[in-house]
Amino acid sequence: MSNNPADQQYTTRIADLPGTEVVFGVGAEEKLPYLLKKNHVKSLLFVYSGDYVNELGIRQKVLDTAKELGISVIENGEVQVNPRLELVHTLIEQAREHDVDFVIAAGGGSAFDTGKAVALGKNYDGDVWDFYTHKRTEPEHQVLGVGTISTIPGTSSEVSFASVITNGHIKGGAAPIAIKPTFTIINPEYSRTAPYRYLAAATVDMIVHNLEKYFTPNAPLALVDQLEENVFRAEYDAAIRFAKNPESLQARTDLHWLSAYVNPQLRSADATGPRYSIHEGVIHAIEHALSGVYDIIHGEGNAAVLIALVRYEASRNPEKFAKLAVRVFGADPYLNTEEENALLLADKLEDLIVNHLHVPIRLSEQGVPNDDFEEVLDQIGGGIGYPLGHYTNLSREDVKALLKSAY
Amino acid sequence: MSNNPADQQYTTRIADLPGTEVVFGVGAEEKLPYLLKKNHVKSLLFVYSGDYVNELGIRQKVLDTAKELGISVIENGEVQVNPRLELVHTLIEQAREHDVDFVIAAGGGSAFDTGKAVALGKNYDGDVWDFYTHKRTEPEHQVLGVGTISTIPGTSSEVSFASVITNGHIKGGAAPIAIKPTFTIINPEYSRTAPYRYLAAATVDMIVHNLEKYFTPNAPLALVDQLEENVFRAEYDAAIRFAKNPESLQARTDLHWLSAYVNPQLRSADATGPRYSIHEGVIHAIEHALSGVYDIIHGEGNAAVLIALVRYEASRNPEKFAKLAVRVFGADPYLNTEEENALLLADKLEDLIVNHLHVPIRLSEQGVPNDDFEEVLDQIGGGIGYPLGHYTNLSREDVKALLKSAY
Repeated sequence: MSNNPADQQYTTRIADLPGTEVVFGVGAEEKLPYLLKKNHVKSLLFVYSGDYVNELGIRQKVLDTAKELGISVIENGEVQVNPRLELVHTLIEQAREHDVDFVIAAGGGSAFDTGKAVALGKNYDGDVWDFYTHKRTEPEHQVLGVGTISTIPGTSSEVSFASVITNGHIKGGAAPIAIKPTFTIINPEYSRTAPYRYLAAATVDMIVHNLEKYFTPNAPLALVDQLEENVFRAEYDAAIRFAKNPESLQARTDLHWLSAYVNPQLRSADATGPRYSIHEGVIHAIEHALSGVYDIIHGEGNAAVLIALVRYEASRNPEKFAKLAVRVFGADPYLNTEEENALLLADKLEDLIVNHLHVPIRLSEQGVPNDDFEEVLDQIGGGIGYPLGHYTNLSREDVKALLKSAY
Repeated sequence: MSNNPADQQYTTRIADLPGTEVVFGVGAEEKLPYLLKKNHVKSLLFVYSGDYVNELGIRQKVLDTAKELGISVIENGEVQVNPRLELVHTLIEQAREHDVDFVIAAGGGSAFDTGKAVALGKNYDGDVWDFYTHKRTEPEHQVLGVGTISTIPGTSSEVSFASVITNGHIKGGAAPIAIKPTFTIINPEYSRTAPYRYLAAATVDMIVHNLEKYFTPNAPLALVDQLEENVFRAEYDAAIRFAKNPESLQARTDLHWLSAYVNPQLRSADATGPRYSIHEGVIHAIEHALSGVYDIIHGEGNAAVLIALVRYEASRNPEKFAKLAVRVFGADPYLNTEEENALLLADKLEDLIVNHLHVPIRLSEQGVPNDDFEEVLDQIGGGIGYPLGHYTNLSREDVKALLKSAY
């Protein structure tokens, strides 16, 4: 090590990011036989959510391919939004009975969450829920391989090692490296028929994934903030193009590509330094508690919390919000105060989300029945705990005020 | 497909990008036992270039780990800059004798080129050179796995499926997906003792990899140009910080991270569309012929060709160069002509390369003995052929004039 003081402050930790084979493009599913052979699959669990996986021909493709290759299959199409531990338990039992050695999950984030949970739990002696309540982190047992077939862009869950499951009251998150998908198949035609409401919400989710990493203390690598700003700019433009013309293959291809390639790489930048921890996923932490209690749409909840957070922090902690407004939206750092520029960012985000994407940002419009948030606040407290965020530093009272302002 | 005309013009091809497990950070080599076990390695070929791999302790780490795990090893440390087919042939013979099933290459681009070539050739019936002369593209035989240990940032070869080999006269390039490394180990401390000249040249190489994709026709994804501009901005800043303080771990970590994560992801963006082909790697195509004939340092040759190309094209084809100058350097599109702005870009690049990085941009300073480029021009003609580039569209006479201007 040098005697350079910057170096001495600069500690990296070792980041191990296994690769996911990304097969991308119209017709990408034609690579499925190759991918199953390559992974020596003998006994497959196929999980998906909704009839659309059937209508898109994905189910038939998976079943036909398995038959061709002599792979046995069990399947389940009952995954729902905010996926359930109960279903995970059932599928783990079935996977054990059928000696499943690989999982394919098709659909959006919920199908991937479920598939990853089963892959994690199948060979685990205890209850897989342990990994979702931080009793266990990295597994010592053999985790099954997972392949994803993505029908909606946004979460990056198609390539990430995150899985979020609810037990009906509490949403738990697991992130062991071993559940990172072995491959993902992304055919941007698949999202053509997805309901607009889900596509728009997932687009907001993608932007929140990027921004909540930006609303954090100094980056370990000097260029990370800069890249995140510019990816935000690209996401902002792509979101507007998509909202204008949701049918456009090009617009949705941009979103799929950002979700599969760009956002996850930025997350890996954070993985090389101490900056990003679960405590910096502030918006997701609040939203997971919200949708754990009220079963609202994840991307919509994120939209509400994002706008409320920026406005709430504008007077307390404006720097990073103002910086984004100055760098991306050309806000004037001389004419305006930091607070004014942070509020300008909130206005810009609200304009994008409400006026362009038509996503509601009031919790009262999203299915939250009242503005008593005690159960939500308890869940955050019992989960990752307060204060929330090394940059934002939100107490329970802060989160309460923030949620009330979003109602 | 929709009836949207933009969609009908918009054809994607299926891009299959296998993952590379990236282990990144100071001490990353501690993951080597895990990586070798995971890949079921039994018989290893270890190739590297130069004593520094020994001095950094990498050789000992590889040999000790292999011993611990009962893996047999053959090793060769004779890889040189502009790596040779002759050595590849020798190593393929040895690999066959010892039933090698995995290759580890340590060092910079040349070691990786060599390791990939051996992995490609070991089970191939014919001469591996076939893949470097476009007689063969995707192999049908089993290609060995490759792991890389990177001691210098820049080429992205640590994670890419490119390999460039010279037979002493001609440099050939192979890019079958199967040689994409299974894993890479990147410890930014390793580059601390690398000679400044090579580090600076590799930094230019990284920037050229990014820019030559930008100097191309319209991107298939609307956001690709925008991301490339912003990555260029990050690379430009990182290069200046590195040049000011080559000892700084943070500056070199930024470069390693751009090389391993960011640049290759942008390349995968291009892989999703028809834009980027070997004909768009114009600067590399010219430089590979140059260093094939004259054995100059690849990154230095790239620096010379880059500056000469921008100046040469400024009057013929200024748009993309001017666009970069306007967007990144704030050049004025109203006050200046396109040509003036393209020339402004050349000045900015020259300032970065010559004044900050201290890389020579005259071929006469780089080891090219005279300005008769006929052999170089023949090689380009016999290789990918003229005209060069769908955007730049350079004839043999154009390349000749360009090279003479760089002498």
